[in-house]
Amino acid sequence: MRDFSRDHRWLSINTATVRKSRGADLPLTEIIEACARRGIRAISPWRDQVAAVGLDTISTRVKAHGLELSGYCRGGMFPAVGAEGLRAARDDNRRAVDEACELRAACLVLVVGGLPGALAGQVAHKDIALARSQVRDGIAELLEYARRAQMSLAIEPLHPMYAADRACINTLEQALDVCDELDPGQPGGQASPARAALGVAVDVYHVWWDPKLRAQIERAGKHRLLAFHVCDWLTPTTDLLNDRGMMGDGVIDIPRIRGWMEGQGFAGYSEVEIFSAADWWQRDHGEVLDTCIQRHRRAV
Amino acid sequence: MRDFSRDHRWLSINTATVRKSRGADLPLTEIIEACARRGIRAISPWRDQVAAVGLDTISTRVKAHGLELSGYCRGGMFPAVGAEGLRAARDDNRRAVDEACELRAACLVLVVGGLPGALAGQVAHKDIALARSQVRDGIAELLEYARRAQMSLAIEPLHPMYAADRACINTLEQALDVCDELDPGQPGGQASPARAALGVAVDVYHVWWDPKLRAQIERAGKHRLLAFHVCDWLTPTTDLLNDRGMMGDGVIDIPRIRGWMEGQGFAGYSEVEIFSAADWWQRDHGEVLDTCIQRHRRAV
Repeated sequence: MRDFSRDHRWLSINTATVRKSRGADLPLTEIIEACARRGIRAISPWRDQVAAVGLDTISTRVKAHGLELSGYCRGGMFPAVGAEGLRAARDDNRRAVDEACELRAACLVLVVGGLPGALAGQVAHKDIALARSQVRDGIAELLEYARRAQMSLAIEPLHPMYAADRACINTLEQALDVCDELDPGQPGGQASPARAALGVAVDVYHVWWDPKLRAQIERAGKHRLLAFHVCDWLTPTTDLLNDRGMMGDGVIDIPRIRGWMEGQGFAGYSEVEIFSAADWWQRDHGEVLDTCIQRHRRAV
Repeated sequence: MRDFSRDHRWLSINTATVRKSRGADLPLTEIIEACARRGIRAISPWRDQVAAVGLDTISTRVKAHGLELSGYCRGGMFPAVGAEGLRAARDDNRRAVDEACELRAACLVLVVGGLPGALAGQVAHKDIALARSQVRDGIAELLEYARRAQMSLAIEPLHPMYAADRACINTLEQALDVCDELDPGQPGGQASPARAALGVAVDVYHVWWDPKLRAQIERAGKHRLLAFHVCDWLTPTTDLLNDRGMMGDGVIDIPRIRGWMEGQGFAGYSEVEIFSAADWWQRDHGEVLDTCIQRHRRAV
């Protein structure tokens, strides 16, 4: 297992972590500068943050600083009611692939969506099996587009508490079942690429509880392990979405999970993604980034 | 599938649902009277509610009204630090079995516990595999005691968002793995009892999201399906513990899940268990019970 205690060369910052500084929106350009100043070598930006500044500007800044993108957040949200909704999701996901290519991201992260309407508080139906079927079909279609663009797609299984409104793929096993169906390949074979066309993003917040986690990480193998996200699960957790903890402040044995990842050959970035409305987003982003660096070295 | 639309003979009230009336604690004796007045034939009381009045009194009242207990809430909380903590859990669980017998409960529901200290906000360790091992050992030991008392134990897999502080058994598959290990038996065989010594309580709130739910209900089979709990998942959900919805107000396709249960031969009560600090616990308990009856008939 890599020694993270001496430097932060394998730290990536998911830019949602410093989406706000002292409660105010922080432009992605400033996030990039602040990361670069600290010798952080990689980020994973969100599409809305990119769009707020402009793709060309961000692409220029990222390249000027030699920053890598450990991922691009995010595609997905496939389920919809009716052909028009499904088509809109398809087109938007293709644009996400294009943007990820322009930014030379390692992968496009997919948060696949849940029951249509749930995010707005009023579901169109309660058929989660139908939503899952639309997710499968949506990924299958996008995969063809992404293959041509040579952009890997990383399905991120989300914690089951988001099954209704954000993602109906909720375990690593379920995500890998989709991978194996749509991108069978030959794991471990000589012809197997280092990075699968379709794989998974493993976020400890979403999967730490899973009794099958280790077995499924082993099943995934290096070529499907496209991203590794870290934060921590707080006790108590006071909000389902925006009360994630800094690594070391919660109950997740992060080094153990990283060990399982690296046991399969994963050698990519450890990406810090923390949604924290009441705590970290209220602090100065410089303090947040400095804390990420410290915790990366001793709690990841 | 049974027709619930014409009466509420298969409705049971988990007494946590009316733990409070207009925000004030409601004694279990009053809950029993209110249920009996409405022709509700079964309840599932909590130990603290029983203890507040006294076991003898509750036992007398339950029998006087001819009420059945669809379950008794709850045993479990096995993990601990040190021999003394484990022994205390063992002894308390034995008392729970004794109480369940006195009240002639159909089963003792087990909420198995999580990381020691998590409920108080400070975990003693982060080793969820160790907690799971202690849960397994605790159930194994209690099972011997419960067999002698002829009381079935129902493992309730809790939603993964409770893995840290309430239960580290989080899927039906995981619960059934424990059942099969500790109580192998012969599912479906002629010698198999109608009710297994060790089985599961299926609460739609905890398991609705699970892509393997149907398969695992089929795996469980009639003799391990000891209890069926209902409420609903609200979007948004504003509190991890106490924002559960009334059946029909959320996103869970409850009749579909009940159909899977009954497809295996489950013919027991549908037990309403709603923790709702800001909504239903603020209403008059009579209104809550009347609503449970209505929703049982049209949304379960």
